[in-house]
Amino acid sequence: MTTQQIVLASRPKGIPTLDNFRFENVEMDAMQDDEIAVEALFYSVDPYMRGRMNDAKSYVAPFQIDQPIEGGVVAKVTATKSVNFKTGDIVMGRLQWRHNTISNGEGLHKVDTNLAPASYYLGILGMTGLTAYFGFTDIGKPKTGETVVVSGAAGAVGTVVGQIAKIYGCRVIGIAGSEEKIKTLKEDFGYDEVVNYKTTDNIKETIAQYCPKGVDIYFDNVGGEISDSVIANVNFKARIVLCGQISLYNSTEVPVGPRLQPMLLTKSALMQGFIVNNYESHFAEGMAQLGQWVKEGKLKSTETIVHGFHQLPNALLGLFKGENTGKMIVEA
Amino acid sequence: MTTQQIVLASRPKGIPTLDNFRFENVEMDAMQDDEIAVEALFYSVDPYMRGRMNDAKSYVAPFQIDQPIEGGVVAKVTATKSVNFKTGDIVMGRLQWRHNTISNGEGLHKVDTNLAPASYYLGILGMTGLTAYFGFTDIGKPKTGETVVVSGAAGAVGTVVGQIAKIYGCRVIGIAGSEEKIKTLKEDFGYDEVVNYKTTDNIKETIAQYCPKGVDIYFDNVGGEISDSVIANVNFKARIVLCGQISLYNSTEVPVGPRLQPMLLTKSALMQGFIVNNYESHFAEGMAQLGQWVKEGKLKSTETIVHGFHQLPNALLGLFKGENTGKMIVEA
Repeated sequence: MTTQQIVLASRPKGIPTLDNFRFENVEMDAMQDDEIAVEALFYSVDPYMRGRMNDAKSYVAPFQIDQPIEGGVVAKVTATKSVNFKTGDIVMGRLQWRHNTISNGEGLHKVDTNLAPASYYLGILGMTGLTAYFGFTDIGKPKTGETVVVSGAAGAVGTVVGQIAKIYGCRVIGIAGSEEKIKTLKEDFGYDEVVNYKTTDNIKETIAQYCPKGVDIYFDNVGGEISDSVIANVNFKARIVLCGQISLYNSTEVPVGPRLQPMLLTKSALMQGFIVNNYESHFAEGMAQLGQWVKEGKLKSTETIVHGFHQLPNALLGLFKGENTGKMIVEA
Repeated sequence: MTTQQIVLASRPKGIPTLDNFRFENVEMDAMQDDEIAVEALFYSVDPYMRGRMNDAKSYVAPFQIDQPIEGGVVAKVTATKSVNFKTGDIVMGRLQWRHNTISNGEGLHKVDTNLAPASYYLGILGMTGLTAYFGFTDIGKPKTGETVVVSGAAGAVGTVVGQIAKIYGCRVIGIAGSEEKIKTLKEDFGYDEVVNYKTTDNIKETIAQYCPKGVDIYFDNVGGEISDSVIANVNFKARIVLCGQISLYNSTEVPVGPRLQPMLLTKSALMQGFIVNNYESHFAEGMAQLGQWVKEGKLKSTETIVHGFHQLPNALLGLFKGENTGKMIVEA
């Protein structure tokens, strides 16, 4: 039996293109004892994947040339020689970008599709939700009445952070790139105000105006000049949570900007980067809390679903053009 | 009775000069009930005072034009109408730069000159020691065997941080600006290696060489390009403690440098500014610990003492030229 997979054909310089990917048909290994066969249903595409396309030491190993891309996948068990999985089980985990995979089950977790749609386990009830939850609560340390700014507010993590911030009783200001996104964020996700970074002349002043008491928490998904504008408005003892720097991922030179240390110093402010895996030992607790909020209707999911395995590279590229609102997912 | 005082004559643009200060003779108020008269013995000059010379909102209010400079002072009670102080008591606190002062005693604390020389209460047993102690332990969170880099290592705070890091069982690398300072740091203060930033071509590589396991804690007193070189070497989950940015205090434009967020993100690193007053409720505990270490001989003081009240402005200016090793103090 053959299956189709997507490999890294070449490493991008700057903005990735479709040429960096290659589709291949490969022969599948035979299933051994204790193994399962899975068929992918949903693939997660995420900004951090851009970093893995570089040959640079980072928190996750780089993708290898001519080897399959891998990422978060929800899949269905189609055959099993394992006591741990039944045919028909829906599982979530890190898998290669291919239709069918033989797995020993390691790192795959069964999910309950009665509780929530399968795709949620890549988003609000998966790494995206956990990223928002741990970054915002553990580093942001929100207090009722504080002011929170979220960049990349319409992105997968941003839509969740905004809602959690509202649950904590914060004032929440977003930054996004279209009037449609702004409408969604305000009407569906509880954002108090949203700045359109593409049409606002002076983002710094607009943030100041929307945050009359200053900014206590800045949850940063984008970096660059947008972040400069927010950081200029932070309060004493502010927390700046570094979750993503999507505006800089395609930089080919070291990005330069105002030095932040003097401001962090005089404001006794904190800036901290994180990856969700730092909280692995607390995932169960995070999932339980997110699930509870979803059940109570306090936390809503938003997804941009692209159809077709062949669209995977395009969907990943679309993240850097802001083509998604909420979680970007490819349905097989 | 008259006394001499030093006022801020004008605000500096860039590097301060003697013209920014003015000596004045003023008539002293009569001592009222519950007040004391004190005569200054030692004055503290500190880098943060540069910030107070600007008319900018910061964590401490700016000095006012034509008003006395103020700072840490150790003084002797020369007359008293207060039940809390006896003539001859030695006190420490924030006072104006003048020979004689009438005070209601608020913010003045008696110090024990049998335990340590009076000047220590401006340095190792005063704000300097507390700054080193809280910044390093609370933000740096040192663990045995970790590698610590300290910039401004020969400064007042740097000499203390290095010693505390050794007490915690860390490898300690300093950065300083003269061979004499380097000798002192290695021979007297336990630094494992010290980089001479004035004569080292590639500070980044030298740090890498001195820190084969990478940098876990960077205690930053200087900022600017020296910090860039250190930060390029930090480990996953590194802590960057922002205590001072003396290299930038005289900048007249917003300093620009490489954006640090991408690196902080991929390394899950923390960068946090602080001022010692954030720890005010823990001062007693900090003083007790520092006093204990001094008594056990684990913590040594080093001071650069300048003689004469008339030298105060010069001594402050000297900080920005690196003229001090350890705490810079002016003896009245």
